[in-house]
Amino acid sequence: MLITNIKQLVLTEKKARTTPLRGAELAKLTVVENAFLLVENQRIVDFGEMANCPLRADKTIDATGRFVLPAWCDSHTHLVFSHSREEEWVNRIKGMSYEEIANLGGGILNSANRLQATSEDQLFEQASERLEEVQKTGTGLIEIKSGYGLTVESELKMLRVIRRLKESSEVEIKATFLGAHSMPMAFRNGNRQGYISLIINEMLPKIADEGLADYVDVFCEKLAFSVEEMEQVLAAGAKYGLRPKVHVNQFNCMGGIAAAMSHGAVSVDHLELVDDADIEVMRNGNTIATLLPSAPFFLQDHTTPARQLLDANVPVALASDYNPGTSPSGRMPFVVSLACIMMKMMPEEAIQAATLNGAFALEAADDFGSIAKGKFANLIVTKPMPSLAYLPYSFGSDIVERVLIKGL
Amino acid sequence: MLITNIKQLVLTEKKARTTPLRGAELAKLTVVENAFLLVENQRIVDFGEMANCPLRADKTIDATGRFVLPAWCDSHTHLVFSHSREEEWVNRIKGMSYEEIANLGGGILNSANRLQATSEDQLFEQASERLEEVQKTGTGLIEIKSGYGLTVESELKMLRVIRRLKESSEVEIKATFLGAHSMPMAFRNGNRQGYISLIINEMLPKIADEGLADYVDVFCEKLAFSVEEMEQVLAAGAKYGLRPKVHVNQFNCMGGIAAAMSHGAVSVDHLELVDDADIEVMRNGNTIATLLPSAPFFLQDHTTPARQLLDANVPVALASDYNPGTSPSGRMPFVVSLACIMMKMMPEEAIQAATLNGAFALEAADDFGSIAKGKFANLIVTKPMPSLAYLPYSFGSDIVERVLIKGL
Repeated sequence: MLITNIKQLVLTEKKARTTPLRGAELAKLTVVENAFLLVENQRIVDFGEMANCPLRADKTIDATGRFVLPAWCDSHTHLVFSHSREEEWVNRIKGMSYEEIANLGGGILNSANRLQATSEDQLFEQASERLEEVQKTGTGLIEIKSGYGLTVESELKMLRVIRRLKESSEVEIKATFLGAHSMPMAFRNGNRQGYISLIINEMLPKIADEGLADYVDVFCEKLAFSVEEMEQVLAAGAKYGLRPKVHVNQFNCMGGIAAAMSHGAVSVDHLELVDDADIEVMRNGNTIATLLPSAPFFLQDHTTPARQLLDANVPVALASDYNPGTSPSGRMPFVVSLACIMMKMMPEEAIQAATLNGAFALEAADDFGSIAKGKFANLIVTKPMPSLAYLPYSFGSDIVERVLIKGL
Repeated sequence: MLITNIKQLVLTEKKARTTPLRGAELAKLTVVENAFLLVENQRIVDFGEMANCPLRADKTIDATGRFVLPAWCDSHTHLVFSHSREEEWVNRIKGMSYEEIANLGGGILNSANRLQATSEDQLFEQASERLEEVQKTGTGLIEIKSGYGLTVESELKMLRVIRRLKESSEVEIKATFLGAHSMPMAFRNGNRQGYISLIINEMLPKIADEGLADYVDVFCEKLAFSVEEMEQVLAAGAKYGLRPKVHVNQFNCMGGIAAAMSHGAVSVDHLELVDDADIEVMRNGNTIATLLPSAPFFLQDHTTPARQLLDANVPVALASDYNPGTSPSGRMPFVVSLACIMMKMMPEEAIQAATLNGAFALEAADDFGSIAKGKFANLIVTKPMPSLAYLPYSFGSDIVERVLIKGL
């Protein structure tokens, strides 16, 4: 298949890079004006200026006036869940805090109760619909976490749903085990270590046995798990070859970033709050700071200090955090808009953070995240638009006209 | 046409009210569960519980699992314009203020220069596309302003484009003359009164002669027009029967609200900042406070004090402010989301403010804004959803499945 007359082919690489973009690299986006792109056997086999366009192909798409970008790589979601939670959101509007709702058994425990009562088939049907919806807005690679199970049986059920999604969808999926998402009520009265042991001795071995997870995650936060508890879980995950991608610094700075990095974290996610020590430890590492602007937008609590991280040369990715409590949306074009509007990222930075650095945050940049020969043809064709900045600027419009996943 | 099995028919009225909703009325939304709705000759002729549903109609829509709402009444837009302005937005991300951009000839003057160079036909084509886009997201009644002309010829051109839109679209349109949107450069060196005279003596008589405007508007702001200048324009508009709908209190409190109300303003729009005197003068009036959350969202400058206005019994409406500088979106479902997320309005308040009170802000509540016998069948049919609060909660989803304008 051949795409012709592309107004601007965005984020091209002569040779696929092997390290995430950072600093000035993130702000500088390579493009080809008036371009073609050739797809064969699911992959990009050639691209360049129209002057060098092959004469024919089995199928041609005329992209006159349109931009072509790599599909979004959404590296942090919780899109397998059982019910929306708008009633809690209404309570937040009335003045309750996230912590108050969580302490009343709302929040993650609410989702866990509901997921435990929902069949694997029902979960799969609901999650499939959400996956189709985010695919239509341009997502071609996505991470999905467990963490609304919180029992051996239900964590396995969630991860099996994710495996079924991997088998049924063209969208590439990575699975993350997040047993340590919230402390179940039964373990809150003096037996926290009992749940940590359940994760380490019951959940992880079974998950490894079935090959259900690609990563291990912990919600490291005052209202969830301590740094020390996180380190136990990460050390156990390492025995099964699971690298960490962790929730840290959403509501508090607790030293979780340095601890996770010492366990080889691929990414540290959230970072609505960071202190100087956090910045220093990330400055020269290859651990990716994955920012999730929908959550502070929906909670209206913090503004993620993206510029501080970018200016400190930290490799930054953007993801949706799609979940029923704090980000009931997986619409990546809007995440890119929010990153510019709320976090003052430049359009070029936001687009690269939501594509190529997202792919690095899932160790999948050999195959995804940019326009490079040999990578999968995961592509967004926009509607006609005047400039690349128009994409995040027009925050309410459906600017994605067509999405190709592995060339289809 | 008959709509059956409606999960919830929202904002029903036994008898269409004659005054805008305020205080506790705004928070209390009347609904019919498991309902039908019958349309004949463009209008709602009957509705109620399914038990009383007529047996047949020429055409039936099954709305099982779906909510039916009145279409949005977007009472403040600038959707006739010539070019998007994402390059100015990028300058804002880099740190320039709205005022700095305006003082450099950007902002409204930038749009005016471009509009002056664009033909009426081109403007009509572009605006028609935008109108179709907002219609798809559920807008059935809309106000459109002039104000990017700023010369006699170009203000007339804009208003003629709006008249052509009125003639060509099923969406009901009201036109507002906003010659006093920004002081043209030629009048900035000691001849401000020259432009006011042009508005009063040249523009207004011609506009009235052709019947091109329903309202008169002034941008009353430190960087635009003073209260005294506004009052001159409003007094002149009154001679032609044009009631005021004005821009006030976006960046400064200058006493514009009281002044506009003394001229019989139908609405005072923006109100990102209000002081105690503003609240007191609005408390017992019927002038509607039209809030525009997209603008402070996109500018990230203020949070409109909606709760303060609601608690003071002020009738509040919501509108999109669709314009290329500060709100490049006319997507009303997202405006409703923003009102809840940023301004802490309850979903019921936001929905009523964006429908029935929007209709009152355009003096069109006899025909629009609620589900009442005799009103036009301007209707939104949602996708299946669990509750009404799900609509603003799912801020990134396209929850509008179908839009009927005058029954079609």
